[in-house]
Amino acid sequence: MAKKPLPIYVLNGPNLNLLGLREPEIYGRTTLNEIGKMVAKQAKTHGLSVVFRQSNHEGELIDWVQEARTKSAGMILNGGAYTHTSLALHDALRALDKPLVEIHLSNPFAREEFRHHSYISSLAKGVIVGFGAGSYLLAVDALASLLEGPAA
Amino acid sequence: MAKKPLPIYVLNGPNLNLLGLREPEIYGRTTLNEIGKMVAKQAKTHGLSVVFRQSNHEGELIDWVQEARTKSAGMILNGGAYTHTSLALHDALRALDKPLVEIHLSNPFAREEFRHHSYISSLAKGVIVGFGAGSYLLAVDALASLLEGPAA
Amino acid sequence: MAKKPLPIYVLNGPNLNLLGLREPEIYGRTTLNEIGKMVAKQAKTHGLSVVFRQSNHEGELIDWVQEARTKSAGMILNGGAYTHTSLALHDALRALDKPLVEIHLSNPFAREEFRHHSYISSLAKGVIVGFGAGSYLLAVDALASLLEGPAA
Amino acid sequence: MAKKPLPIYVLNGPNLNLLGLREPEIYGRTTLNEIGKMVAKQAKTHGLSVVFRQSNHEGELIDWVQEARTKSAGMILNGGAYTHTSLALHDALRALDKPLVEIHLSNPFAREEFRHHSYISSLAKGVIVGFGAGSYLLAVDALASLLEGPAA
Amino acid sequence: MAKKPLPIYVLNGPNLNLLGLREPEIYGRTTLNEIGKMVAKQAKTHGLSVVFRQSNHEGELIDWVQEARTKSAGMILNGGAYTHTSLALHDALRALDKPLVEIHLSNPFAREEFRHHSYISSLAKGVIVGFGAGSYLLAVDALASLLEGPAA
Amino acid sequence: MAKKPLPIYVLNGPNLNLLGLREPEIYGRTTLNEIGKMVAKQAKTHGLSVVFRQSNHEGELIDWVQEARTKSAGMILNGGAYTHTSLALHDALRALDKPLVEIHLSNPFAREEFRHHSYISSLAKGVIVGFGAGSYLLAVDALASLLEGPAA
Amino acid sequence: MAKKPLPIYVLNGPNLNLLGLREPEIYGRTTLNEIGKMVAKQAKTHGLSVVFRQSNHEGELIDWVQEARTKSAGMILNGGAYTHTSLALHDALRALDKPLVEIHLSNPFAREEFRHHSYISSLAKGVIVGFGAGSYLLAVDALASLLEGPAA
Amino acid sequence: MAKKPLPIYVLNGPNLNLLGLREPEIYGRTTLNEIGKMVAKQAKTHGLSVVFRQSNHEGELIDWVQEARTKSAGMILNGGAYTHTSLALHDALRALDKPLVEIHLSNPFAREEFRHHSYISSLAKGVIVGFGAGSYLLAVDALASLLEGPAA
Amino acid sequence: MAKKPLPIYVLNGPNLNLLGLREPEIYGRTTLNEIGKMVAKQAKTHGLSVVFRQSNHEGELIDWVQEARTKSAGMILNGGAYTHTSLALHDALRALDKPLVEIHLSNPFAREEFRHHSYISSLAKGVIVGFGAGSYLLAVDALASLLEGPAA
Amino acid sequence: MAKKPLPIYVLNGPNLNLLGLREPEIYGRTTLNEIGKMVAKQAKTHGLSVVFRQSNHEGELIDWVQEARTKSAGMILNGGAYTHTSLALHDALRALDKPLVEIHLSNPFAREEFRHHSYISSLAKGVIVGFGAGSYLLAVDALASLLEGPAA
Amino acid sequence: MAKKPLPIYVLNGPNLNLLGLREPEIYGRTTLNEIGKMVAKQAKTHGLSVVFRQSNHEGELIDWVQEARTKSAGMILNGGAYTHTSLALHDALRALDKPLVEIHLSNPFAREEFRHHSYISSLAKGVIVGFGAGSYLLAVDALASLLEGPAA
Amino acid sequence: MAKKPLPIYVLNGPNLNLLGLREPEIYGRTTLNEIGKMVAKQAKTHGLSVVFRQSNHEGELIDWVQEARTKSAGMILNGGAYTHTSLALHDALRALDKPLVEIHLSNPFAREEFRHHSYISSLAKGVIVGFGAGSYLLAVDALASLLEGPAA
Repeated sequence: MAKKPLPIYVLNGPNLNLLGLREPEIYGRTTLNEIGKMVAKQAKTHGLSVVFRQSNHEGELIDWVQEARTKSAGMILNGGAYTHTSLALHDALRALDKPLVEIHLSNPFAREEFRHHSYISSLAKGVIVGFGAGSYLLAVDALASLLEGPAA
Repeated sequence: MAKKPLPIYVLNGPNLNLLGLREPEIYGRTTLNEIGKMVAKQAKTHGLSVVFRQSNHEGELIDWVQEARTKSAGMILNGGAYTHTSLALHDALRALDKPLVEIHLSNPFAREEFRHHSYISSLAKGVIVGFGAGSYLLAVDALASLLEGPAA
Repeated sequence: MAKKPLPIYVLNGPNLNLLGLREPEIYGRTTLNEIGKMVAKQAKTHGLSVVFRQSNHEGELIDWVQEARTKSAGMILNGGAYTHTSLALHDALRALDKPLVEIHLSNPFAREEFRHHSYISSLAKGVIVGFGAGSYLLAVDALASLLEGPAA
Repeated sequence: MAKKPLPIYVLNGPNLNLLGLREPEIYGRTTLNEIGKMVAKQAKTHGLSVVFRQSNHEGELIDWVQEARTKSAGMILNGGAYTHTSLALHDALRALDKPLVEIHLSNPFAREEFRHHSYISSLAKGVIVGFGAGSYLLAVDALASLLEGPAA
Repeated sequence: MAKKPLPIYVLNGPNLNLLGLREPEIYGRTTLNEIGKMVAKQAKTHGLSVVFRQSNHEGELIDWVQEARTKSAGMILNGGAYTHTSLALHDALRALDKPLVEIHLSNPFAREEFRHHSYISSLAKGVIVGFGAGSYLLAVDALASLLEGPAA
Repeated sequence: MAKKPLPIYVLNGPNLNLLGLREPEIYGRTTLNEIGKMVAKQAKTHGLSVVFRQSNHEGELIDWVQEARTKSAGMILNGGAYTHTSLALHDALRALDKPLVEIHLSNPFAREEFRHHSYISSLAKGVIVGFGAGSYLLAVDALASLLEGPAA
Repeated sequence: MAKKPLPIYVLNGPNLNLLGLREPEIYGRTTLNEIGKMVAKQAKTHGLSVVFRQSNHEGELIDWVQEARTKSAGMILNGGAYTHTSLALHDALRALDKPLVEIHLSNPFAREEFRHHSYISSLAKGVIVGFGAGSYLLAVDALASLLEGPAA
Repeated sequence: MAKKPLPIYVLNGPNLNLLGLREPEIYGRTTLNEIGKMVAKQAKTHGLSVVFRQSNHEGELIDWVQEARTKSAGMILNGGAYTHTSLALHDALRALDKPLVEIHLSNPFAREEFRHHSYISSLAKGVIVGFGAGSYLLAVDALASLLEGPAA
Repeated sequence: MAKKPLPIYVLNGPNLNLLGLREPEIYGRTTLNEIGKMVAKQAKTHGLSVVFRQSNHEGELIDWVQEARTKSAGMILNGGAYTHTSLALHDALRALDKPLVEIHLSNPFAREEFRHHSYISSLAKGVIVGFGAGSYLLAVDALASLLEGPAA
Repeated sequence: MAKKPLPIYVLNGPNLNLLGLREPEIYGRTTLNEIGKMVAKQAKTHGLSVVFRQSNHEGELIDWVQEARTKSAGMILNGGAYTHTSLALHDALRALDKPLVEIHLSNPFAREEFRHHSYISSLAKGVIVGFGAGSYLLAVDALASLLEGPAA
Repeated sequence: MAKKPLPIYVLNGPNLNLLGLREPEIYGRTTLNEIGKMVAKQAKTHGLSVVFRQSNHEGELIDWVQEARTKSAGMILNGGAYTHTSLALHDALRALDKPLVEIHLSNPFAREEFRHHSYISSLAKGVIVGFGAGSYLLAVDALASLLEGPAA
Repeated sequence: MAKKPLPIYVLNGPNLNLLGLREPEIYGRTTLNEIGKMVAKQAKTHGLSVVFRQSNHEGELIDWVQEARTKSAGMILNGGAYTHTSLALHDALRALDKPLVEIHLSNPFAREEFRHHSYISSLAKGVIVGFGAGSYLLAVDALASLLEGPAA
């Protein structure tokens, strides 16, 4: 299939660049850089390449989601705080037209009320939360499976 | 009048650069570029020039609104999703002190509940929604009429 | 087309007969009668005739909306206060099956909270508010454009 | 009994005169006129006569409810949209002092949220909804049974 | 003063024609006709004449309020159930520009929740509720006092 | 038709086994057993047989609804208190794929607020409430009519 | 009757001792002392004496309401801000068992939202608001009328 | 470690026994039985055995959760509709003291509002939704990883 | 009296069988079995016998409440989580017609918001919470006192 | 222990001095004075002395709670209406640092909605409501038991 | 200026007399008396004298605010719990007509929800919270600066 | 201490660059540049240097907060409109781990409802609002005091 050679996009929202530094009791001690490497390795086992990025800027994340419309096979998105507030990100994702998996390091439902609603969930194929860096790896497996389709 | 030679600003918020590509059943098939040309042409019939821009970045839109305080005769604003979430954009518009017309391509009141509230409406002279690219052209007429004042 | 010779209906809800008399700082000084003439003139430029009426009676407006099902090409509706309270008018409009443009003289979103919700908006093709008598004229242009369709 | 010779009142609220014409996927294709005949026939099997009326005017419905205080044996009421908004109709029914059956053609609980509350239900002996014209016939049976009382 | 010879308008909303007949434990046993006579007599002691009317039709009440703009010195309004639902009546009263006293026979605050909000109160000079027919007589005294002004 | 020989299921939720014993001013004095016999007799007039059951156990009611998917022609359900709280029952009914009539002995809309919402109504073809044991008999007529279809 | 010689209690809540001094555009320029004299004079025309008091202390007002149970014929209460917050005052009034008239100088329904609810209204025979010092005088008339009963 | 030989519990709530039969567009065509086999196979790759059960009875699910306190190494729970309504299940899970993974076949956040809240999420280590039968397999991997701990 | 020989029912809802095992910082270390013995002993001092049961099944608790209608002199109910969610249990208790005392081991008002509402409280004679096993013993005393009546 | 000789404080809020006089169908016929004696007697059986007071003044109750910080062994508090409105009392109790038992004569959960929330409950060790004067006696037993501690 | 010789009022609400004794982790260990001295000293550096008071009685605080209308140059108010509940205090402050600074020792926005709303804030010139005794000293500086006006 | 030589960060959110230009009746006439100089001067009196910045871009503010984690001794933050909408800024501040003082020029509690909630307050040591440029200077004093600690 033509779509296969396209990479998957793994996008990370605001403050995730601090991973491993801030609040380790919630987010663990692995850095985002280390997670990026683990993700690439896991994706490789499915024959997939990865574009792995982070931004604190809502607009930049929207730019990347738009870019992914033609340049990615699917997306894994950890929207950070924009998950809960960005209708603009929601609108960008509506136009994505690629399988989307929403992830979070921690379990937002075990945290403050204002982290319970997500502007991403209703557009995602599936959601995986609470497994730390493991959320990324499970998402790679899940997305790979979605891309292979029912035939696999 | 001194104000006349100033152009009108037509600003477009997040994801409007995808116009004509995403969800045509809601937004139609005309691209934002094509709309820009139609707007310039329509404005010309009123002897008005146009500054036509789009950004996915909330901060950039705020920069432009501030710029328009001294460099525009009036504004037409399609805030996209920031319409519904950006208090910062609202604050920028409070300081605009120029006639403002809010527009939308589709009719937000016929869509999801979270698109019913607007941070722009209470500051706008008028609102025009639901006529696709036509919303822009009607807004040009309306803004021209506001600039001409009661004498016209 | 067979529909062309049919007039457009421009209906006005409660208290709009007081136009030009009450609260001129909100509604302006033009009377409803004068607006009726301006509307007819503007419609003529599009080759359209107009039925222009006002009533304080919810039931009478519903009767007229029902009448418009077979006798009009499209409708411009300034529902006045019934805009915000009349589910019965909403139901009548659901059966209209003609292009509908909702208008208001002032911008309801810059007024009291209880004027923010409209039972008409979700059924309208588009909404134009805040331009005083200008709202009517822009609506005539918009409706004409809708009646001509994409071919025009 | 003295009450028997009095007819039952079957009143219909706004837009029900469009029955069979508008939104047949919700309301079916039978006209209100045809329903009136079916109702009269069904009532006759119980030895009852029928006053069958429709109005788009809230005030006219209130007048009829007041009239029914002395001129009817009981009432079947399809309040249409006034069901959900008319406190004045509610007040009129409070003074009715005759058995009341509320009916609806479609099932309002399977429709929009704003059709879930009824100003009539709390005053009705019973409610029957969702069976199209059948709602009227079941209501005639139910009302007949209420009028005959426990002895039957 | 020029205003003196004008009568005061005493308007009564839906179902008040049933007074003395329905729910006497709430509304008492005096008929509306009898109240009309008591009001006229009491007004006479202040040198005032009275126009006393009742309607079940929201639109008719609005017509009368509009009429009162030029033909009355002031208004006493028992809006009945429209008190709680009619934004259109509210809009009509906004244009009244005469002293307005809102009254109710019973005390709405001791009744159902949905009778606690009034669309009239915010526009009234004062409110008198709960004294049965006495509410009308106290309102005549109060309105007379308002018309005489601080000099009296 | 193949479906005809299948019985209709008439299921009764928690505490309905106390019928005739508890709160007779609300529920009447007829026992559930007696109602079962009346239902069977009424169904027979339509050539229908009946499976009539009651349980206080949410899970057992769900088991029966699942069973009815293949073994019934249609269902009459008096869900008792589970009507208002059981999303699990709602999910079971979603898979029923047979005409469903919701009934209640008393009129829940004339009772406490927490009995106004129903998890069953949105899935039912129709709802009949408030006629005591009569609700069951009217429901049999209604369901029979639904099973016969438009041809009858 | 034995009750007649008892005085009526006219109690005034917090900040009413500032009357005539603070915010005259809302409360007028008459002092509470002057109102006390007007009230006594008006009561005398009905053959009634008056106990007229003010306190800023919720507990003291409650003490007085309890005292009034045996020492007053009826009560006029301007609860000031405690009207809107004091459930304890409400409970004291529940045990009053004398006719109670609630008054306010200004019309609370034309002021902030948090002045719309009253803990007193549901226990009052009637409510009179918005007539400045006139509210007190009308209340004296109303209370006198209530004490005389239907025979008068 | 002593815990290793203990099986993992995979519990399924109400209506999941209908899997593959009802609403395949939401839940897919795989039966619960088939999923049970896939889960066992996947668990085996981690050296884990599985207890796989389903019940429509809230109480039975609670019994099983209590049983799992001493007889399981960890739990995967698809609570079905009880997810959203069962505080009792929540309380049972609070006492579980084993790693818990909540799963759903479909994505509840893309469905009705009343499926957005979960009584399970706040007690779960992680949540996986939206991948159909894949949700189970990912959960087995996730749970295995949690049981192996950071050393693995 | 005939009622005396009847035992009192002490019913315990879901998860109370784990007492003494789970979350001892909230519920203490005494087992339900031990509480049962303490209750029996305390009841004996009042000449009362006890039926002491626990179930995780809502339906079984309802069965027992129904049984208690004829077989008990009064009831002490620790509804556990069903306290907060079971309208069906509420309905069963409405038909109990015996003195009912609601108890909880811990103080629900010092815990999560969703434990603050009780479907039992409004039907109970009294409520005792927060004294651990002591809540049961105080309830036995309270119930004994209620059964002895004012004469004792 | 050093604390033993200190008395327990039994404080009573607004309007409780009317006990036995007002609304006996809710509060019974025993006076507060009589309850004070019963409490002292009951406390004596536990070797405890009692300080028993009542005030209608929120500030006075706060003064007493502060006094109790050093002069009492524990407190029983019937806050009356201040229970539901006094955050200041709540703050005083936060600093009490002695076992606190909240009581009410009647069951607030069987009364108006605004009596359901308590500012005291979350700070109390336990709550006892609904047993009239018996609530006080049970509270003495409960408090005595708390003071004796687990050793007793 | 004539106003200068007037002292500033520093008023403290309920439970602040316990400062330094209760909950030191929230309120610190400095007593109110010590703060009074620090405030006087700090005020002296601005040439200001201080009236420093505390009361647990809402009415007494209102009395003092009224007194301050003529006897103070400005006010610093730590309303304690009355901040969040006292509309009567709000009304007293509306009539103060002197610069008002609201302070709190701790940061109420980092505490319970019911401490987030303040009846004082909307009337204050400024608000300073969270700096313990430092809040008082900063407020003295701020108030001094306000009294000196723009010239300083 | 090593931390002392680090500057304090004073960050300013959207539209604050317009200070002195827009809405002077709310924000005063001092420009942000002038405030920056005053702040630097005031900080110098405490031996502190200042990094003073403004941005309209949410992401840029987040970048700066992250930078301040290692490069600042403490922070003063005027978040402008992002105060009320930016959860992402909140998350960045959670990782700041330096004393934070939130400030506003005007008093948000005296403005629109949507300016009452702050995502910053719960993370700030203290909050100072309403003193115009003075808010900045007081915050410098407060922050200096926090940095010196209890020893100072």
